[in-house]
Amino acid sequence: MTQIKNIGVFTSGGDAPGMNAAIRAVVRAAMYYGIEVTGIRRGYDGMGKGDFFTMNRKSVSNIIQRGGTILKTARCDDFRTPEGRKNAYEQLVKNKVDALVAIGGDGTFTGAKVFGSEYDIPVVGLPGTIDNDLVGTDFTIGYDTAINTVVDAVDKIRDTAESHDRLFIVEVMGRDSGLIALRTGIATGAEAILIPESKTGLEGLFNRLEFGRKDKTSRIVIVAEGDDTAGGAFEVGRLVQEKFPNYDTRISILGHIQRGGAPSCMDRVLASRVGAAAVEALRDGHRNEMIGLINGEVAYTPFEHAIKHHQGIDPNMIKLVEMLSM
Amino acid sequence: MTQIKNIGVFTSGGDAPGMNAAIRAVVRAAMYYGIEVTGIRRGYDGMGKGDFFTMNRKSVSNIIQRGGTILKTARCDDFRTPEGRKNAYEQLVKNKVDALVAIGGDGTFTGAKVFGSEYDIPVVGLPGTIDNDLVGTDFTIGYDTAINTVVDAVDKIRDTAESHDRLFIVEVMGRDSGLIALRTGIATGAEAILIPESKTGLEGLFNRLEFGRKDKTSRIVIVAEGDDTAGGAFEVGRLVQEKFPNYDTRISILGHIQRGGAPSCMDRVLASRVGAAAVEALRDGHRNEMIGLINGEVAYTPFEHAIKHHQGIDPNMIKLVEMLSM
Amino acid sequence: MTQIKNIGVFTSGGDAPGMNAAIRAVVRAAMYYGIEVTGIRRGYDGMGKGDFFTMNRKSVSNIIQRGGTILKTARCDDFRTPEGRKNAYEQLVKNKVDALVAIGGDGTFTGAKVFGSEYDIPVVGLPGTIDNDLVGTDFTIGYDTAINTVVDAVDKIRDTAESHDRLFIVEVMGRDSGLIALRTGIATGAEAILIPESKTGLEGLFNRLEFGRKDKTSRIVIVAEGDDTAGGAFEVGRLVQEKFPNYDTRISILGHIQRGGAPSCMDRVLASRVGAAAVEALRDGHRNEMIGLINGEVAYTPFEHAIKHHQGIDPNMIKLVEMLSM
Amino acid sequence: MTQIKNIGVFTSGGDAPGMNAAIRAVVRAAMYYGIEVTGIRRGYDGMGKGDFFTMNRKSVSNIIQRGGTILKTARCDDFRTPEGRKNAYEQLVKNKVDALVAIGGDGTFTGAKVFGSEYDIPVVGLPGTIDNDLVGTDFTIGYDTAINTVVDAVDKIRDTAESHDRLFIVEVMGRDSGLIALRTGIATGAEAILIPESKTGLEGLFNRLEFGRKDKTSRIVIVAEGDDTAGGAFEVGRLVQEKFPNYDTRISILGHIQRGGAPSCMDRVLASRVGAAAVEALRDGHRNEMIGLINGEVAYTPFEHAIKHHQGIDPNMIKLVEMLSM
Repeated sequence: MTQIKNIGVFTSGGDAPGMNAAIRAVVRAAMYYGIEVTGIRRGYDGMGKGDFFTMNRKSVSNIIQRGGTILKTARCDDFRTPEGRKNAYEQLVKNKVDALVAIGGDGTFTGAKVFGSEYDIPVVGLPGTIDNDLVGTDFTIGYDTAINTVVDAVDKIRDTAESHDRLFIVEVMGRDSGLIALRTGIATGAEAILIPESKTGLEGLFNRLEFGRKDKTSRIVIVAEGDDTAGGAFEVGRLVQEKFPNYDTRISILGHIQRGGAPSCMDRVLASRVGAAAVEALRDGHRNEMIGLINGEVAYTPFEHAIKHHQGIDPNMIKLVEMLSM
Repeated sequence: MTQIKNIGVFTSGGDAPGMNAAIRAVVRAAMYYGIEVTGIRRGYDGMGKGDFFTMNRKSVSNIIQRGGTILKTARCDDFRTPEGRKNAYEQLVKNKVDALVAIGGDGTFTGAKVFGSEYDIPVVGLPGTIDNDLVGTDFTIGYDTAINTVVDAVDKIRDTAESHDRLFIVEVMGRDSGLIALRTGIATGAEAILIPESKTGLEGLFNRLEFGRKDKTSRIVIVAEGDDTAGGAFEVGRLVQEKFPNYDTRISILGHIQRGGAPSCMDRVLASRVGAAAVEALRDGHRNEMIGLINGEVAYTPFEHAIKHHQGIDPNMIKLVEMLSM
Repeated sequence: MTQIKNIGVFTSGGDAPGMNAAIRAVVRAAMYYGIEVTGIRRGYDGMGKGDFFTMNRKSVSNIIQRGGTILKTARCDDFRTPEGRKNAYEQLVKNKVDALVAIGGDGTFTGAKVFGSEYDIPVVGLPGTIDNDLVGTDFTIGYDTAINTVVDAVDKIRDTAESHDRLFIVEVMGRDSGLIALRTGIATGAEAILIPESKTGLEGLFNRLEFGRKDKTSRIVIVAEGDDTAGGAFEVGRLVQEKFPNYDTRISILGHIQRGGAPSCMDRVLASRVGAAAVEALRDGHRNEMIGLINGEVAYTPFEHAIKHHQGIDPNMIKLVEMLSM
Repeated sequence: MTQIKNIGVFTSGGDAPGMNAAIRAVVRAAMYYGIEVTGIRRGYDGMGKGDFFTMNRKSVSNIIQRGGTILKTARCDDFRTPEGRKNAYEQLVKNKVDALVAIGGDGTFTGAKVFGSEYDIPVVGLPGTIDNDLVGTDFTIGYDTAINTVVDAVDKIRDTAESHDRLFIVEVMGRDSGLIALRTGIATGAEAILIPESKTGLEGLFNRLEFGRKDKTSRIVIVAEGDDTAGGAFEVGRLVQEKFPNYDTRISILGHIQRGGAPSCMDRVLASRVGAAAVEALRDGHRNEMIGLINGEVAYTPFEHAIKHHQGIDPNMIKLVEMLSM
């Protein structure tokens, strides 16, 4: 068992609901094991600048239900340079931080991996991103809340779609992944989904709209941000309107509302479990691994593996969208 | 007392939460007074095409909580022509509809006014629009729900703004009116609001951003859809970014989510009160009037007056935004 | 114009959503006018114990959307004694607090009135209570949020009532007043409401249940906490079940969820307006008055008057419940 | 492959959010495979009384987001008798229903198991209950929504707890199972949970309250309905108050709000997946099995097994509650 005395915790990359629950779990679990905790503000940027503060049980009181991250987050170009990382390491040494918990996604773990290979400091990661695009955990912290937010928004849009007999093209987040689009497409009864992972293309969409149910007067199409069928929701909308001029077609970009809000129960539980497990993992000598939850059990995945692979899309789920919206 | 036997009810223009509660109130109050009710689908368009059905108490069961309108709504160019209105009148006569309740906004009442002047059929209106831009009622049906939806969305956006120290430009509905922007600006603690009714312009905004609190790291600016300070939220965002290159500026267009969702308590109560009052007004011989609620009392306003004037913006409320976000 | 230099602000009585928005408005408006602000924790109790702290703009950052009160609230028996009030006054003097803004309801203003008559310190009040039972304001801070919470809860209960063909007796808050029950009864399409202000009694309820629509299979009855028709929701439920043994009758006491949650847009706007107006009122020499909003305008009501009278119940609203749920 | 021509679908037992999504999936998937669907109202009761109707794609339009069940549900004592089941079978034969999908929990599957053993009709089940107390699926339909509802309610209660420095005893559903209490206890940062599966008892609770953090002024204790530590939340509250007279202790029974509301994204996806899988299972010759989802894959569990066993409680999760609320 490694003798860890002071864990530094930070959030990096896009904020996600449940990050605060994860921070709370790291702090409280560390206290439980008699380990001190240093909060690092604004991710790698704050690490390089020594924006540190000592956290105690009270620092994380009454935050489990809050969206965003009390530690703030930022991009950091400096950390991509050897000098930037050297600087960060010196700050950690100066503040007697001897282990790190990094909460974030892809980019966060890429930085952590390089840092962990250059300097002798154990780093573990927690999957904090609404995109669910990491291997090594069934779900990422924030995903469940984000898809509930999308579903709630599309339910509202459907009220208008039904009232006006309209077709709505709704763009949801997911630059490289259609995982938000996929589940929310099923859950909102969408007519079709356009996602990066599936190349049905415009013809497929047109076919569905042309040969689908005639008595269906309102329709929802979910487009993932990263889909390149036509170059975004506006372009898809334009082409649909061109092809089906008598449809009353509208576009809605859900945008940043998808990142915020009080985390769902599942996101809080996930964040709490992996947050506590991260502290235990550091005590047990783990390093350079992401701590996730697979089939309800804590799972340890090397950063390298977590970021190189993406969860695939189950083709049965895509079929389900079409089968059920008929 | 006019002997009304069969009231036709319809919704027209953009849908608004609470329209169903209003339809329910019209139907149930009519039944209470022994009057039959004919539902007319898709507004003036369905009127011209005779898309009618008999409604009873059960037709409006379990709809008080639903967004949208079960009677659907549509635009109708035909009704702008004398032939279109003649056609509509003939359908009403054929179906023995001898009075109308029109639920909608500006455009709806403009049509109703012309129709009521050409044909001998009493028409009263209910203010159903999220925009709150009618004279003759303190609030329109749907406004309260819409501003709650906006506030809920901006609360989510603020989570991200706080976490990333960002400036968000958020565009809300209101083509001719800043009333949604005004109240939601106060309620979300926005730094500034840009609305059609106030010409502070870009200079005012720049001044606020430049000379405001230095320790404020996240900022929200609410822009009404109809504001022409710079030509929309994207253009405002571009100019802010140009002027303040070191701000991390983002744009969010809330869009159609603002129209949907379960109506708030106040919208349901308002819709229920004016819905019942509309039936009583027709029995009492009212015609060509909108039925609203002013200071808690039912108020009757000629269509002509309701649509020609807009509620002004209280300058104290604009000052309040600036005073409190400092 | 009185020269106010340091305003003490506190919350007292039951917490209400929007209290934080009111505190924020008091602090920010005072800063705007160059007045210092002292936060007093836990109401009159903290005042007597000198639990004071200096507030600045940042003290109230990011709280406009939070339920509860950051200043906390408590009962205080001490303040009912002359010694208790003497003690409190000495603490104020010691801390150079020369004016007070009290946020609360009935009990809060009763204390303020006595205190203001005994000691030479200007006190104004803000109506912060979910009960809406004060004269001098159309709505109290927290009422709008509370009725939305009730409506949301009853919408959920109705799902079960509809699925199981059940009658639900739902108890809502309101010890002396049926105002929560009244509006939520209309908004949820309740079959009947039982409130302290109206003595229809059990016979009336039985009649409605017996002779109402036969095709209605699910029913909601809203009972105000303070109703004494039968001694509470459980007793009403027992008697209904006795009289109608073949109804599947259930009871639900909504309880404390009605006090919490993010304040609605209207509650935040109301709190912001009267909060700023309170500071201006103190500057203008007002004292011993509650600052409310009547017909959209700031209104000043002597404490004495605000607490002695209750808003009556409009009998038309009670009739509306019955007319529309038929 | 069995030649199924007409599937009867019904819901039974307590309603759960997502039941409508499941009904929709069964209907749409059956249509997709050219199978007719018969809706059976009010569970086994309606089956015995022949309360059947033909369903088509449109019957399930716009219901995916609704709580409750459009097919209604009811208890049925008749079905426990051989005559009752004979009667039901004759109704199915008469209406040419040659397979069944039963949506419900324990009691539903017990009935289905007996029925399937007595009569030659394939029956499969879908896990529809908020309690999550079935083996053969990671989660039951409705559980995710219910725990979000609880968390949302306790967040509201915490606003008051924090404002008043109170201890709240909150009772949540779960007659035989602490699964709702467990996850919501973690997610709300509860001080302690009392559940049927764990016998820490009152001493454990008293110890936690006595020796826990001294600076913690507000506390939440979650009690499962079925916990018999002291005989319900009121009794627990009474004993806590007796032991700690200077705590301001309150009780809240969340009750029926936990069953209703729009289903969460995950519940809709789960219901959609197993609903479609149920139709495919019947086509593939499955019978007397519950269709669940384990580790993201469709799983088939004999009714016998699904109802005899309960999911255990992971002791690490109980430890987590205590570790993180310290």
